[in-house]
Amino acid sequence: MALADARAGTRNEAGVAAVLGILKQAFGDRFQTGDAFRAQHAHTTTYIPSQLPDGVLFAESSDDVKAAVRACSEHKVPIIAFGTGSSLEGQINAPNGGISIDMSRMNKVLAVNAEDLDCVVEPGVTREELNVYLRDTGLFFPIDPGANASIGGMTSTRASGTNAVRYGTMKDNVLAVTAVTASGEEISTARRARKSSAGYDLTRLFVGSEGTLGILTSVTLRLQGIPQKIAGGVCAFPTIKAACDAVIMTIQMGIPVARIELLDSMQVRACNRYSGLSYPEKPTLFLEFHGTEETVPLQSAEFGEIAAECGGDEFQWTVNLEERNKLWKARHDAYWACRALAPEMAALSTDVCVPISRLAECVVETQADIEAHGLLGPIVGHAGDGNFHVLLLFDDKTPEGVAVAEAFVARLNARALSMDGTCTGEHGIGQGKMAFLEQELGGAVDLMRQIKRGLDPDGIFNPGKIFHAD
Amino acid sequence: MALADARAGTRNEAGVAAVLGILKQAFGDRFQTGDAFRAQHAHTTTYIPSQLPDGVLFAESSDDVKAAVRACSEHKVPIIAFGTGSSLEGQINAPNGGISIDMSRMNKVLAVNAEDLDCVVEPGVTREELNVYLRDTGLFFPIDPGANASIGGMTSTRASGTNAVRYGTMKDNVLAVTAVTASGEEISTARRARKSSAGYDLTRLFVGSEGTLGILTSVTLRLQGIPQKIAGGVCAFPTIKAACDAVIMTIQMGIPVARIELLDSMQVRACNRYSGLSYPEKPTLFLEFHGTEETVPLQSAEFGEIAAECGGDEFQWTVNLEERNKLWKARHDAYWACRALAPEMAALSTDVCVPISRLAECVVETQADIEAHGLLGPIVGHAGDGNFHVLLLFDDKTPEGVAVAEAFVARLNARALSMDGTCTGEHGIGQGKMAFLEQELGGAVDLMRQIKRGLDPDGIFNPGKIFHAD
Repeated sequence: MALADARAGTRNEAGVAAVLGILKQAFGDRFQTGDAFRAQHAHTTTYIPSQLPDGVLFAESSDDVKAAVRACSEHKVPIIAFGTGSSLEGQINAPNGGISIDMSRMNKVLAVNAEDLDCVVEPGVTREELNVYLRDTGLFFPIDPGANASIGGMTSTRASGTNAVRYGTMKDNVLAVTAVTASGEEISTARRARKSSAGYDLTRLFVGSEGTLGILTSVTLRLQGIPQKIAGGVCAFPTIKAACDAVIMTIQMGIPVARIELLDSMQVRACNRYSGLSYPEKPTLFLEFHGTEETVPLQSAEFGEIAAECGGDEFQWTVNLEERNKLWKARHDAYWACRALAPEMAALSTDVCVPISRLAECVVETQADIEAHGLLGPIVGHAGDGNFHVLLLFDDKTPEGVAVAEAFVARLNARALSMDGTCTGEHGIGQGKMAFLEQELGGAVDLMRQIKRGLDPDGIFNPGKIFHAD
Repeated sequence: MALADARAGTRNEAGVAAVLGILKQAFGDRFQTGDAFRAQHAHTTTYIPSQLPDGVLFAESSDDVKAAVRACSEHKVPIIAFGTGSSLEGQINAPNGGISIDMSRMNKVLAVNAEDLDCVVEPGVTREELNVYLRDTGLFFPIDPGANASIGGMTSTRASGTNAVRYGTMKDNVLAVTAVTASGEEISTARRARKSSAGYDLTRLFVGSEGTLGILTSVTLRLQGIPQKIAGGVCAFPTIKAACDAVIMTIQMGIPVARIELLDSMQVRACNRYSGLSYPEKPTLFLEFHGTEETVPLQSAEFGEIAAECGGDEFQWTVNLEERNKLWKARHDAYWACRALAPEMAALSTDVCVPISRLAECVVETQADIEAHGLLGPIVGHAGDGNFHVLLLFDDKTPEGVAVAEAFVARLNARALSMDGTCTGEHGIGQGKMAFLEQELGGAVDLMRQIKRGLDPDGIFNPGKIFHAD
């Protein structure tokens, strides 16, 4: 990937210089301006060039966040929150320079309320850290994007993952946030009650706002009881359509499937090669059921009947932990399995989401597109949500290679939008999908701009993301 | 209740006169300015005096809504959406006069997408109409506030009801809305995909905004498959605490209870008298389980064990439709059963919501408060959410009687807030809870004001609700 410095344009050189002085003075070694730190806080995982911030602050408390926001606010300098840097659409880039505020040291679990099935965490806690912390409570936090992302980052991109079909996305699992807003004050969007009708839903406004409205300082999360019993299984189908029909019937019948993941033939082939497996190289569903000793076999059997009706192979499932882990390791290694198909190429993970009635059509047309253009792009999908990813392998060393990738992404998004879908189910807009957001929502994007101007009049929070300010 | 005309204050007489002329000319008989129409569109169901609009427009299409909004926008005149008038906190009052836009004739179901488990409806469709319409599809829309409210009204107050514990609230079941905004343009907040990370969550911003950001013209709703099997049952407990402990254990164990409603002894007594029943007059849970032939008995049996562990009576449940209907009729008649306790008095339904670990404490303290003040106020709660209602009987004929009710509501809200709860779980803020919203969220209410000013700079949409504009 290219490593460009912060782009010119609306850089506020005098303001940046002032803020660098203030933060250096206030934070000493916790504020870094060296190239390595700056580059590390602006890497992207796409064809978007990196755009470096001018300095990186390692925040350790809400007071640190307030001090940084006040300095940036006073001098109208961009401030960009950084969790683990695993976002996929250039969310952490600094197109006009400014300050990257690294939240990884704000990684305390502040409270676990087992009776209420909730917890309060600092935004730098990663999802895996949280689940390790919760292990002895009988509770877990279900949302699992591929990366071990931070809770703050997951909140900000409205992340989800393999089990959103059962447990929802971050929108459904964040009960409240605290955030430092443009005035430098810390606000709380909600109390800890499970539901509320008290005014505008500021919680949901911050969820998915990609750091453009303030800096999160804590997140209150809903937790789930660890299921008594878990079953996993794999089922191959003759066609994508048959697999998707099985998904639709499963959802319609109200079988509370916890995961129902679609891999296309190319993805199965990649997984077989990478992980030394021998799954039939056909469209395949990976499933998981959460329940009790009694209900998990019932759910699994019900799905088996549906699969048979849709022309699927025999559905084999297991409650054995080792076998389940092996199965899901193959799914979770999908990204690396793809990369191994052509190690000399770069990989781009892009996502769209359509109504599930259109999923088969959208996937099949996308496969045809990939073949027609001579591309390599295995497909994995959170089929229960109608959400799928293409892991496009492309040449990032030449402008032509990048152009091929960009054109593919544009066609994929146009296709999803034409099917009443969205340009992103879980990766967010960042810089990479701004044009598609306009195509998707048209005039509604103006409402977003009005909100942004109201809450962040000087445009200091993560500028140049989601939409252009005017 | 008092029937006051629109209050003085910031009435825009010239603007109102201009808009009355425009709408009369454009809509003829569909625009009414007679007292009966005006009064009917401003009744409240609380101690808040009615405040009448200057005219009532019966909208029949998005174009009607656009025309009305454009007239009101041009002349800076309030416009207040009216569904069925069942809101409980003065949401439909017109404190500065203006136009009530009655949505009841926009009552078409525009699309049902059975494979995607969603539908698109006009805002005037009521929840019962929708379920009648869906009957042959095998699907249903679960959200059930007590009244047969309109979908637009339910969206606007972020309504829920008895089965939110299983299916969520309107926040979880609205996929998208279209709305006419202050510019007179119609915008769409989202596509029909089940999830999206595309920009700010405008859908959730409109859900619960009580008509203060625009006028809804359609709502896309998530639907559920009608359960194969339903079981219902009743279980009495020695104390509120014991009943609430059973609720907490049920939720923690992940039993997918569809309804778990708490009635206090006074409410059970009222129901017994009103409906000729003979339930033990003790704190009681009414339950419902949705599942299959196999899972419903398992869920019911698991709950029975929990109830026994918590000191409850034997849990008797049934899948018989007639018996279940009788059981739930008693619950649904709770309001009328209360009124019958003192027919000469007015009734006020107020709600708060607390973390479920605090529910028993909050209910018990509220009972003590009711007793200490010599009030009549049975309690019913959506216990799985920590949400409960007091049906306070009070004298609305005298200022002293109203003051007693207001003071009780203030104490109830202070109590809920002191337990990290919210001043309303499902009724909304309207006019009645504005002071409590400030207590609950403090500085966050300023963010709501900034959003309001950005989207509705002239303050035409339902002014004087949720918060004071400045």
